Formats: sequence, structure tokens, C-alpha cells
Amino acid sequence: MSFPTDLEIAQNADIQHIRKIAAKIGIAEDDLEYYGKYKAKIPLSYIDEQKVAQSKLILVSAINPTPAGEGKTTVSVGLCDGLNRIGKKAIAVLREPSLGPVFGIKGGAAGGGYAQVIPMVDINLHFTGDFSAIEKANNLLAALIDNNIQNRKFSLNIDPRTIVWKRVMDMNDRALRNIIIGLGGTASGVPREDGFNITPASEVMAILCMSENFEDLKTRLGNIFIGYTFDKKPVYARDLKAEAAMAILLRDAIKPNLVQTLEGNPAILHGGPFANIAQGTNTIIATKTGMSLAEYTVTEAGFGADLGAEKFLHIKCRSAGFKPAAMVIVTTVRAMRYHGGAKKGFFESPDLASVQLGIDNLKKHVENYIKLNLKPVVAINHFATDSPEEIAFIQEECSKIGVKAIVAHEFTQGGAGMTELAEEVVNAAENYGNDFQMLYEVNEKVEVKIDRIATEIYGADGVVYSTKAKNDLKVICDLGLDHLPICMAKTQKSLSDNERKIGRPAGFKINVREFEFAAGAGFIIPILGDMMRMPGLPNVPASEGMDIDKFGNITGLS
Amino acid sequence: MSFPTDLEIAQNADIQHIRKIAAKIGIAEDDLEYYGKYKAKIPLSYIDEQKVAQSKLILVSAINPTPAGEGKTTVSVGLCDGLNRIGKKAIAVLREPSLGPVFGIKGGAAGGGYAQVIPMVDINLHFTGDFSAIEKANNLLAALIDNNIQNRKFSLNIDPRTIVWKRVMDMNDRALRNIIIGLGGTASGVPREDGFNITPASEVMAILCMSENFEDLKTRLGNIFIGYTFDKKPVYARDLKAEAAMAILLRDAIKPNLVQTLEGNPAILHGGPFANIAQGTNTIIATKTGMSLAEYTVTEAGFGADLGAEKFLHIKCRSAGFKPAAMVIVTTVRAMRYHGGAKKGFFESPDLASVQLGIDNLKKHVENYIKLNLKPVVAINHFATDSPEEIAFIQEECSKIGVKAIVAHEFTQGGAGMTELAEEVVNAAENYGNDFQMLYEVNEKVEVKIDRIATEIYGADGVVYSTKAKNDLKVICDLGLDHLPICMAKTQKSLSDNERKIGRPAGFKINVREFEFAAGAGFIIPILGDMMRMPGLPNVPASEGMDIDKFGNITGLS
Repeated sequence: MSFPTDLEIAQNADIQHIRKIAAKIGIAEDDLEYYGKYKAKIPLSYIDEQKVAQSKLILVSAINPTPAGEGKTTVSVGLCDGLNRIGKKAIAVLREPSLGPVFGIKGGAAGGGYAQVIPMVDINLHFTGDFSAIEKANNLLAALIDNNIQNRKFSLNIDPRTIVWKRVMDMNDRALRNIIIGLGGTASGVPREDGFNITPASEVMAILCMSENFEDLKTRLGNIFIGYTFDKKPVYARDLKAEAAMAILLRDAIKPNLVQTLEGNPAILHGGPFANIAQGTNTIIATKTGMSLAEYTVTEAGFGADLGAEKFLHIKCRSAGFKPAAMVIVTTVRAMRYHGGAKKGFFESPDLASVQLGIDNLKKHVENYIKLNLKPVVAINHFATDSPEEIAFIQEECSKIGVKAIVAHEFTQGGAGMTELAEEVVNAAENYGNDFQMLYEVNEKVEVKIDRIATEIYGADGVVYSTKAKNDLKVICDLGLDHLPICMAKTQKSLSDNERKIGRPAGFKINVREFEFAAGAGFIIPILGDMMRMPGLPNVPASEGMDIDKFGNITGLS
Repeated sequence: MSFPTDLEIAQNADIQHIRKIAAKIGIAEDDLEYYGKYKAKIPLSYIDEQKVAQSKLILVSAINPTPAGEGKTTVSVGLCDGLNRIGKKAIAVLREPSLGPVFGIKGGAAGGGYAQVIPMVDINLHFTGDFSAIEKANNLLAALIDNNIQNRKFSLNIDPRTIVWKRVMDMNDRALRNIIIGLGGTASGVPREDGFNITPASEVMAILCMSENFEDLKTRLGNIFIGYTFDKKPVYARDLKAEAAMAILLRDAIKPNLVQTLEGNPAILHGGPFANIAQGTNTIIATKTGMSLAEYTVTEAGFGADLGAEKFLHIKCRSAGFKPAAMVIVTTVRAMRYHGGAKKGFFESPDLASVQLGIDNLKKHVENYIKLNLKPVVAINHFATDSPEEIAFIQEECSKIGVKAIVAHEFTQGGAGMTELAEEVVNAAENYGNDFQMLYEVNEKVEVKIDRIATEIYGADGVVYSTKAKNDLKVICDLGLDHLPICMAKTQKSLSDNERKIGRPAGFKINVREFEFAAGAGFIIPILGDMMRMPGLPNVPASEGMDIDKFGNITGLS
């Protein structure tokens, strides 16, 4: 009998009414805003800053991932279940997935195997409408910009060639990447180059995830940079009086979404910004809500610890005042083989020699965060093809640098396979007295901030700036935005900016090709490579294999 | 003290938990899918064809409207409240509004004054996400089309120049009307002309509103016509295996949405197709759900009785097997002045002489439906500027042609001002034995079907076809779609196709400029004028006057 698909496991789950999940964490039924029986929004009033200060935040990150991913989400969900099994009141607080990729090649993004959040189909489709609301807020601003250009009476004199604000759509639609709009004569706008990004790439998404409340949200939305006037003055969303209407469109999206794990433990899914050009982690509001309701809040950040964790700590934690109580770094044996140079097609076969080389990637990430006063726990996300020798080797090597490496069986066993990891995470959170130290301060020079990340986290020898990057940086300084933290846009596949440099590369510099900035979300974005903001569909889109029967039952969604 | 705004009235309403509204019409709480406390989706299992056959369907239509509109929605809501006040179990089943226009000049579309459906803000924003789901389904098909053009391996050989399927966005965004997509090199699609319509103009919306269940929905989605191959073979959505994935995206949107009137009576809002190029009325599923749950189901169709009611009867009623038990034709005194030739700026002042001329417009609509065996009741939607003489005149003239004209006070008095109209509607539904007769059969020639509508409903002398229209018609016949009913796309301002011909024009022909067709929704669309499918924003968008405070309270939404 083959292992069931994620959808089969999810559909066979004994899902509980969300009111029961809410009751476990002390949310009064009358305070819930239901979206059907299994999803609910939690009002912002459940944030309790005193409880936030006492709650233990567990950050799950990973080594530099292989294309298959190493299972941060499944480990996060399984760890939450494991913590609950050992008697801790724990909640998973994660991102909500984007709809577009569901019809491409990607599977769902609500965990997998026996470590999933459910209802899986809802979560992978429209969920509670947050992404659609973000899309509308983003596109309202775009419409207001083009309307102002069209409008001679109240014109802000915007130079259409300088507009950097793109429209968005939560769809894999490559034909919208580069377009010309405003054709068709005087009644239908002013022609200009434009393009669509996928919704998670919207700065509105990044802003929602950084906002503490409605006032903060409005301020950040108003601070969105649009472009310049013909006389070279910067134009912001507030100049179009756009921020309040945009915030109105986000009135419900700002509230975190409560769902459950397969084992009936609470999970909050809220926000899903890109992990390359944005911070790649759920909303501050969701994290605070989780921390207000549970002893342990398990969360994750996109990509590996060099990107996701670094940004989580220096952007999100800085802004919200969080200090993680413990950190988990997820690895897999197969990824160690890959980083050790195992050839393509052989990642799935035992190969101790490659693991012995590849482990340097893991050790670098562990060492990085030990330096910042976090003492990570390593989770070896287990696959059937792992050999005992490989696992033992990883555990021994981790032990040598003072951290524990524990095999995680969440995919096949759920929380039952995660109690050992949970015990170690509790041990770390309660005994090690983690006291995270920032790697840089925001008032340092931009180049200093970047250099600190490049040398300390990536292991680079230095940073090279292109001419364009230098010019872009001057613009950022002229706009008075150089005090913002750094959001690195780099490949996730390597510690360097070259995805072919696997393992623990040395003797390299990173190259900043250009800068972008998110004046509303509040970060500077050094661009180190080509960043995909609008995926395409594959030759055979996943949509072709889906079906829905006359009762509304869905098949083929993975 | 000035009369409160719609938002003030809505926000001060004593809104009930939707479970209480559901209980009134026999829906078990466990069957509801809540969207917060005041909105819920009703499962399709509540449709009971036997009850549908016994229930009384009341169609609310109007004269040719002035730009301000004559109040079909307020009369429909008020009539529902009035019927409940006189002891009838009545439900209002209406369209849900589009979000885009909320930020333009238009007010909300959930009634007005004391005849509203609530929660007003929710209804005017994302509501239960139906429009977003329709948008995604529409745009998934667009992405699949462009992906297939890009895709050399599994190419359907579609000629990009022939593609008629547009993307949609629920936003007033004129700059997206005419665009070029697919620019930026080989990785980013094939360049071609394209454009966005506003979401209510999507054929997916029209299809959702015509569908009886998931199977029917999938079949209709699969029948969507996309364009031609380079060797001139037609391509449909089913050729891209798109219909199931599109239906999956509509899994929740297909279910009707229960809300309430200000007086706590049940209302279903579901679907909102354009009234020009589409059928302009709510879903068949919603209408059947209402008829399964109430004795009286009050519904409306967009624009005047020449457009909305005609299409409602010949497209929707034909497909679903409905026969309205009564019909209400809404007029206003000021519209009678307008149709009688009152000058611009003077519609609001008593002018009996103009009313005496303008009444011919009302009489034509009444006579049309008497001919089809419906005996309309006229509702004079009351305004403070109406004079007793004008009202008396309208009532006398209606009496002469055998119908009652009753003053409707729903805006200022709610249901209390609608009991007289409710009594007369009950009288009509119970005593006149209405037996609607179709004006044409679908198997007649297209020209015959159009001629019947033009001469019998509009009062035209005949129909003129442009060369393009003749060619388009040949295409429709070649595709085997000539058996479909007719969905006229004509100005709503005149019985003719010339908006300046007010009153009851005579001695005119109508001009079919071109044809479109909706192979999935199932109708042929003769185009008689310029049809707006993507509105723009005004000089000062309504968004500028909106605000949201730190508690999430909204102001400035009208």
C-alpha cells in the first residue's frame, strides 16, 4: 500500500469545528469571525503585550535548501504537535500560501504527510480572502496612479516613465510580466510600460506583515514610494490620498486566521510575503496573537537560515521587539549529500562521503546563530533513504559544535515522531537563556550593514557594488531611507550569491547589482541576482489533472 | 436635521446574528457556512424543486432609467420588508455589488435609506469573496491560454490574433482597457493585444449565474469560446482542460450568500453580471434557494424592463423553468418629467405637463408585459419633490390600462411604507393567474428572435444589420450556436438604441453593429452601441474621502 497523498490525508482527517480549537487557547466563541466551520479570524484585541513578552518564540529555519525543500513547514507543524504531546501549550504561526502556484507545478503549502494544517483545500485556494484583499489594495493604488496621470485637473505631474509601482495578480502568468498599458486613445489612459507581479511580491503584502495595527498600516501604506514628478520630486501613496481606502480594503485581512493541525492543535496562518525581495515570514500581528495565546509559538521564515532567519531577526524581530527563545535549523540527509557534491539523480541514495563534505553547510548556519547568542537545535527531517551511518555522522558533528541534532519523523508519524525534538526545544528555551544580539544597528551606513551580513552570515570576503547599485544607493540616501534595515535578495541555494557554490563556499565576494527599497514596509533591498516576481506555468499545468465532482469534492490538488 | 447617509443608517442598524435570520427560513445552524457573524453561505442542498414550483417569484423592473436610477433595489428590499409586515414569508434575492465602482463615483449597491441589505460595508467590499473567485477562474483561463501559446511541446496552435478571452479585475482602471502583453523576450510570453474588463463583465460571472450545479458549471465553463487555431478551428476552454480547475476555484462562490434587510428579513445576494452584455440578474441557484425557503421571492433585473426584464424572462426563466407570479415596474415622478422633456436641472421640480408626456414610457413597458400575460403592478418610488397632482395623474393613467400604481415609501419608511404595494403584489400573484408566454422560441432564426424583441418590446419598425454584424452572425451559425437565446446589448436610457430618444419613441429601427456570443453562459449578444466593460475613476475618486480609524471603523463609504 503506497503512502497516501497530502490531499487524501487531509480529507480523511478528523477535523474539529474551529470553535473547539479556539476554546483550547481561550478565545471566546463570540469573538471568532468564522469563515465556514474550520477557519476563523481572531480579533486584534487578543494581542496582549504582557503575554507576548513572556511567551517563547521558536524560529524554524533551514540549511540552504535543495529544489525539493527541506521541510521547514512540516517540521514547524510537527514540532507544534510534538510540543502539545509533551504537555506544552503550543501554536504554529505560519504563512498562508499563494494561490497561483497551485495550478503550476508546486504542491500545496500547508505542510505535508502527517504534519499538515487543515482544511487543506481551503488553505490552498482562496482561504479567508487575504491575498485577494491585498491584491485589490495594491491595484487600487495602481488605478489611482494612472487616473492621476489621465486627470489634467488635479494632476500631480507624475512622470509615467518613473513609476515603480506594479499591479499584482495571484496567478502564474508570465505574459503579464512586461506589458504596455493605456493604449486605445485619449479616453483610455496614457500609454506606458508596466507589468504584473504575483501577489506575494506586493509591497502591500510586506506592509501588512510588518504592521502592528490600523494606524501603523495606514502610515506604512501612505509611505509607499510611487515614482517622481516631471520636476523630480518623489511621489508617495499619501500624495494620492490612497492609504485610507487601501487600509479599508485590508480591514479583514489584517486579522489573523485560525486553523488547526491534523492533530487538532491550533495554527495561525497569516500573510505570505516573498522570501527574496521581502521578509518571507508571517505577520507581526499573527506572531503576537500566537504569543498572547500560547506558551510556545512555532514560526518559520522562508528559504535558509542565511536569508529567512537573518531577515526574520533583523527586520521583523527588531520592529516587533521579539527575541526568539530557541531556533531550529532543519536539514535533511539528502541535502547534506547534495552540498557534499553528490551527483544529480543520486541525492536519494546513501552516500556518507558526500554527507561528510556537505555537513559544512549545516555547520556554518549553526555557527552563525551561536555567534548571535542563539543556540540552535538541528532537526534532521527523516526520509526512508537515510542510512543510520549518515544520521550518526551528522549528530556527532553537531555535538562537536555544542548543538543537538535530532531526527524528526513528522511526515510519517505526526507529533508522535516529534517528541524528542520538542523536548530538546523546551530544554533550549528554558535553560540556555538565549539572548539574541543584532548583527547591525539601523543607524549604521548602508554599506556597513550589508557588509556585516555578507561577512558574518554568508562567509563572504566583501561586497562589490555595480555602478547602478551605487546610483540606486544615492537615491535611497537622498530620500532619507538609509536608516532602514536590510532585506537581502539573494539566491537561497547557496550561502554565496552564486547558486552553483554549494556546501560552505569561501573566498568569494557578493555582488550588489542594484537596490530597491520598500519605503512603506520599511527596508532596503540589495538585489544580488535575478529575482522572479511572476512565475509561469509549466508545459503541463497542474490544473489539467484536477477535478471536482457533483458534490463539490475535489481531486488532483496536491 | 438632515436625513442620515446610507452608511449611518446601516451602522446604526440593530443587526441580528445571521443564525437568527437563517432560523426564520428553516436553515439549520449546522448547515450554514458563516463568513463572520452577519453573512453565511447556504449549501446547494437547500434547493427543493417541488418548493420552487410552488413558490411565488416577483420580478421588479423599471422604466428606462434616468442616470440617477429609479430605485429598483430599494423597492425590492422594501417590498420584501412590506410582504413580511403583512404576514407573508418573503425573501429578497438580489445581485451582489462590484467592488471597483465603490472607489469611483458610484455609491454602494445594497439598497439605500431605510431599504438596505446589511452588513453594508462588507457587502460593498469583498463580501464573501465570490467576485475574487470569479476573477481568479477567469484569469486562470487567460494564463492557460498564454501558457499554451508559449508552450511549443503541447501547443494547440492557437492564433494569438484571434483570442477573444480577456482578463478581468474588479477595479475601475481605464488604463487596462487596451494593453499589449507578453513583452520582454522569449521567456515572458508571446506579444499580443489584450485588455482587462471589470469582473462583472466576465463570462465566468454570467456562467456562474446560469449554472444549476457543479456539473452544469463545468460543462458551461468548458464551452467558453477562446479563439481559433492558425488553421481556423475553434478553440474552447475544454481544449485546455481548464474547466475543472476553474470550477474548483468557484467551489464556494457557487453557494448563495444569506444576509438581512434592515428590518431583519432574509435576503440572498449572489452573482452580479453586467446588464448590458450579460443577463444582469442574480444566480439561478440563488433564486431557486430563495424559492425553496420562502412563499415570496422578490428579485430584480438590471436596467429597465426593455432590457433587464426581457432578458430575465427569455434567458433566465427559460433556462431555469421559472414563471414569475407577478411583476413590479418601478417609476419615479422625476423620471416621468425627464421622459416628458423636462430640461436638465429641472427634473426635481413639479412639472405636470412633462409628466403627462413622459408617462408614455411607463405605459409602453406596462403594455409590453400585459401582452406576455404578466399583469404588472406599478410602484411610484416616492421623492419629497413629487406633487400630489403628478402622482394622481400617473395613477389614473395606469388605471386606464388596467394596472394599479402605488406610491412606494421604502427609502424613508422601510417596510412600513410598502405594505400597500405588498398587498397589491400578493393580490396579483394570487388572483391574476399570471401565465407568462415567451416572445420567441430558441429554435427560430436569430434574425426572427431579434426582430420579435425589437418590434414587440422596443416598439421599433425593424432591425438593420451592419456588414460586420452579418459576418459575425455567419460565424455564430457556423459554430452551431444560433439556437441560443438573445441577450440584447443596448442603451438602458431609451426604448430605442439612441439614448436621446426619450419617452416612447416611434418610427425607428434598431441597428445591430456587431455580434458577440457567450457559448458557455449560453446566449447571443447583438451589440447596439458602445458597451463599457471597464469603467474609469473620476477626477476626484471616492477613495479620497474614505477613512478607517484605529478600531477599524469606516467612514466615507457611500
